[in-house]
Amino acid sequence: MPDIRRYLPVLEWGRTYDRTALSNDLIAAVIVTIMLIPQSLAYALLAGLPPEAGIYASIAPIMLYAIFGTSRALAVGPVAVVSLLTASAIGQIAEQGTAGYAAAALTLAFLSGGFLMLLGVLRLGFLANFLSHSVIAGFITASGILIATSQLKHVLGVGADGHTLPEMIVSILAHLDEVNIITMAIGALTVAFLFWVRKGLKPLLKRLGASPKVADIATKAGPVAAVVGTTLAVWGLGLNAFGVKIVGTVPQSLPPLTVPGLSGELVQALLVPAILISVIGFVESVSVAQTLAAKKRQRIDPNQELIGLGAANVGAAFTGGYPVTGGFSRSVVNYDAGAETPAAGAYTAVGLAIAAVALTPLVFYLPKATLAATIIVAVLSLIDLSILKKTWGYARADFIAVVATILLTLALGVEVGVASGVVVSVLLHLHKTSRPHVAEVGRVPGTEHFRNIRRHEVETDPSLVTLRIDESLYFVNARFLEDLIQRRVAEGRDIRNVVLMFSAVNDVDFSALESLEAINQRLTDMGVGLHLSEVKGPVMDRLKRAHLVNDLNGKVFLSQHDAWVALGRLDTKKQRKPAAV
Amino acid sequence: MPDIRRYLPVLEWGRTYDRTALSNDLIAAVIVTIMLIPQSLAYALLAGLPPEAGIYASIAPIMLYAIFGTSRALAVGPVAVVSLLTASAIGQIAEQGTAGYAAAALTLAFLSGGFLMLLGVLRLGFLANFLSHSVIAGFITASGILIATSQLKHVLGVGADGHTLPEMIVSILAHLDEVNIITMAIGALTVAFLFWVRKGLKPLLKRLGASPKVADIATKAGPVAAVVGTTLAVWGLGLNAFGVKIVGTVPQSLPPLTVPGLSGELVQALLVPAILISVIGFVESVSVAQTLAAKKRQRIDPNQELIGLGAANVGAAFTGGYPVTGGFSRSVVNYDAGAETPAAGAYTAVGLAIAAVALTPLVFYLPKATLAATIIVAVLSLIDLSILKKTWGYARADFIAVVATILLTLALGVEVGVASGVVVSVLLHLHKTSRPHVAEVGRVPGTEHFRNIRRHEVETDPSLVTLRIDESLYFVNARFLEDLIQRRVAEGRDIRNVVLMFSAVNDVDFSALESLEAINQRLTDMGVGLHLSEVKGPVMDRLKRAHLVNDLNGKVFLSQHDAWVALGRLDTKKQRKPAAV
Repeated sequence: MPDIRRYLPVLEWGRTYDRTALSNDLIAAVIVTIMLIPQSLAYALLAGLPPEAGIYASIAPIMLYAIFGTSRALAVGPVAVVSLLTASAIGQIAEQGTAGYAAAALTLAFLSGGFLMLLGVLRLGFLANFLSHSVIAGFITASGILIATSQLKHVLGVGADGHTLPEMIVSILAHLDEVNIITMAIGALTVAFLFWVRKGLKPLLKRLGASPKVADIATKAGPVAAVVGTTLAVWGLGLNAFGVKIVGTVPQSLPPLTVPGLSGELVQALLVPAILISVIGFVESVSVAQTLAAKKRQRIDPNQELIGLGAANVGAAFTGGYPVTGGFSRSVVNYDAGAETPAAGAYTAVGLAIAAVALTPLVFYLPKATLAATIIVAVLSLIDLSILKKTWGYARADFIAVVATILLTLALGVEVGVASGVVVSVLLHLHKTSRPHVAEVGRVPGTEHFRNIRRHEVETDPSLVTLRIDESLYFVNARFLEDLIQRRVAEGRDIRNVVLMFSAVNDVDFSALESLEAINQRLTDMGVGLHLSEVKGPVMDRLKRAHLVNDLNGKVFLSQHDAWVALGRLDTKKQRKPAAV
Repeated sequence: MPDIRRYLPVLEWGRTYDRTALSNDLIAAVIVTIMLIPQSLAYALLAGLPPEAGIYASIAPIMLYAIFGTSRALAVGPVAVVSLLTASAIGQIAEQGTAGYAAAALTLAFLSGGFLMLLGVLRLGFLANFLSHSVIAGFITASGILIATSQLKHVLGVGADGHTLPEMIVSILAHLDEVNIITMAIGALTVAFLFWVRKGLKPLLKRLGASPKVADIATKAGPVAAVVGTTLAVWGLGLNAFGVKIVGTVPQSLPPLTVPGLSGELVQALLVPAILISVIGFVESVSVAQTLAAKKRQRIDPNQELIGLGAANVGAAFTGGYPVTGGFSRSVVNYDAGAETPAAGAYTAVGLAIAAVALTPLVFYLPKATLAATIIVAVLSLIDLSILKKTWGYARADFIAVVATILLTLALGVEVGVASGVVVSVLLHLHKTSRPHVAEVGRVPGTEHFRNIRRHEVETDPSLVTLRIDESLYFVNARFLEDLIQRRVAEGRDIRNVVLMFSAVNDVDFSALESLEAINQRLTDMGVGLHLSEVKGPVMDRLKRAHLVNDLNGKVFLSQHDAWVALGRLDTKKQRKPAAV
């Protein structure tokens, strides 16, 4: 049984499900359902799919996640960045609006779900950590810019395309003569209205005496109001006759049973994008889930999350959807509305299923410009250039990673951008550890403490050099250490002993071991003793296994002070150095 | 002046050059010249080039290295592994024996030299460190196997080809019917003779009263004796009439002035192999140079070495050669023969130039089987499978890297093999640091020391959890820490304070900072205090800049003991845990 329960968290929270939880979950579900209808339609538009795909992608996935997922507040469905990635991936192999395009979306969801479940079963969730916060922040910001730009064509009522910022801008400029004034008016007014809802409505409602919770939910209902308002306007004034593009007929149906195509050609073309979508979706989802779980002192299991999200995507593939993940805005709405268990997600799915059957005729006159406007306003909150300032002030390597990710994503598209970001951040990390901080230390007079001779007034002994190495030793910095010691020993003809202080060395890999052996050999040739001090238990165990400890021409001291006492000359001179950086 | 001197080490040792150094260098040069003649011919054969290319590649490069290099004993010229890489790179774009093949070798040398000089000027020598000792060891062993196998065809007198082990074996088996018995006899006898020289001659000479130095040099002259013996045999018995392939006409000439072709197509095809050859050649050369320099308490400058080797390769490109590097065997001969300065290299170059003009007719009857036999015996010393046992015992990650490099090099060729080795070792390193060792610590009774509760009998306090993190915190392990703390805090309802002991944390990157902020936020939501202790100076400076220290819901303690005193309950209970691994 424990095994089954591990893979089916529903068995755990289901046991204690009671009436209070039920009523809280139901209320949350109603609120979330209303929010999700325009959002689902809009993200389907962003992904280049028919509007119903967005609704379908919100039904089965949310139920499957409720069964397999570990977060109690996460709402799974279409999200902005994954929709953009979907459009970018499928756009390379099929034309938008064709049957092949929608079919490819199913395959993409299936591959993505399969990959997530595979990672989950193999417990390889840690692989997502290769996306550093800097790369994610840069990528999300660049995606926000790309998404907002991609929606401009709908707001202007022109036909344009492209998957990179330069392509999009050139394409929009080339089509500027086609601008539809009425469409543009609808789009601009909706954007303005949604901004006002964000910034002006909440304070207004509070002044009018509304409770913070009501004010909050009313604010989030802005897109619903915009959808209703502009749909009524188009219907009442017959604006579609003047060239305003509308959503049109959406089939009144429960999610259909679909079978993702798995031809070799299709799989080959979509495998890499599917992996990318999985990883990015997983990272987004886990951060949201973790943040919400912490608020209630719950925890999520990242490897089980992989299974939950994988099942959700496979579900999307078989029910006419496209790749999904746990979204930030929908999850926060769910949480704020008081959802207590994943059952709230299941009720939301039922709500959306009812909407799919009964309400789709109501969006016939909904202008695409309205949906585009809701996307633009939603993603502008993703664009956060303050990350540039923050990383610049904190660590140059992170700043470079952010800038590289943003520029490459904008210039070359989402896939190249995020992949380059990962490579750049790994290389920068390796570069950083390739030149570890090494302090030459001396004794603080009258104590057993040893500190950096460049920062403190300490006693030194010209025959004894002690180097404290502030990094694990491994292949990337092994040769650095060889060079450093060779240079330092070549400088001082009086040097009789070298002590390497290992207090901050957490690992010594085989390359570093060979370097230590080479250093030992070279120092032996020079008649200089090599000693170690303050070696940690696990590192010592390993070094013993390799016989370095036996071969060492010197000794291993438990503490640096022991080394100083054993190796120092009796006539130690006090040597003062100015404090320096 | 200091700048010029940095780039021209010759100006430094040239000033103190005296008669003793001159005579020592001259003696070394004569010995090395004699050794180098057969070796140069053999490596040219391995690279698929005409024999004179090996001689030419030993003349200008050795002189240019003498001017720009920093090692006093390194001998630069064709080496086995680089010759194999050359054959593999050019074999993909031209047929052996054609003019295009030799021309491509010049381009390869030029690109390789240019890349080395570029790295040197940009001081990027550390990039070579990405090749871990494990990958290099695996690669050298696999190359040894490939080289020996590739020479079997010459020993058997058959025509065969292929760049991977399976290809070579299949090709040799397919041509077995063409075996030339006389060629095979010459090859087998030479191999046997050279083995006897290695194992049996030295003890024999010593028993006969020869000095160790003479015995050593005589042993190394084995290939020269084999060349002379088999050449005389072929000439005297007219064996070439029976199908024994001979070296034939070698032009009597100084190195010609050649201009490497730089057409876009050629550069595109050879750029990646050139980079690979540069890096591998550099790594081989620097290890040899460092080992020899240490014996005389000299040092080499890796970035200047890049310039020296780069100049040598560019020189090879303009004088009919092919890619070169500092070779192990020739350098050791040079060192053992008493070379004192790089001038010895220049004299060797003069000796080889004389040989190129005057002695080439003498090798007309030299059988190719002899050269192949000298290569086989020379590279068998490269094959060192003990690395498998050593890494298995020391560190599993290194073992995997060695095995992956060996198998991929043998199965897919040298380029894929070494590139995969680098990727595998980087991934394994990142994986290792992705789950850092974290010890929950308690106080050793009666002291101010804090040790792992799983290894020692220590005092703990149920309201206070102290975690000592034995790794720098960066993006790959940032989320691991979040999960770990969330799990630990979810376990114990009594927990009021968490202390992270940072004594072994050498860096906190931006991702880890964000994780710490998230942890701080989550613990605040849970009403649990977050504190740090024993944070190193550089890490503290950085954290202060980021305001984490201000935002922390708890405090930063100088020592773990301060934290214990400030946060612990007065009624601390002694809690015993069994000692465990």
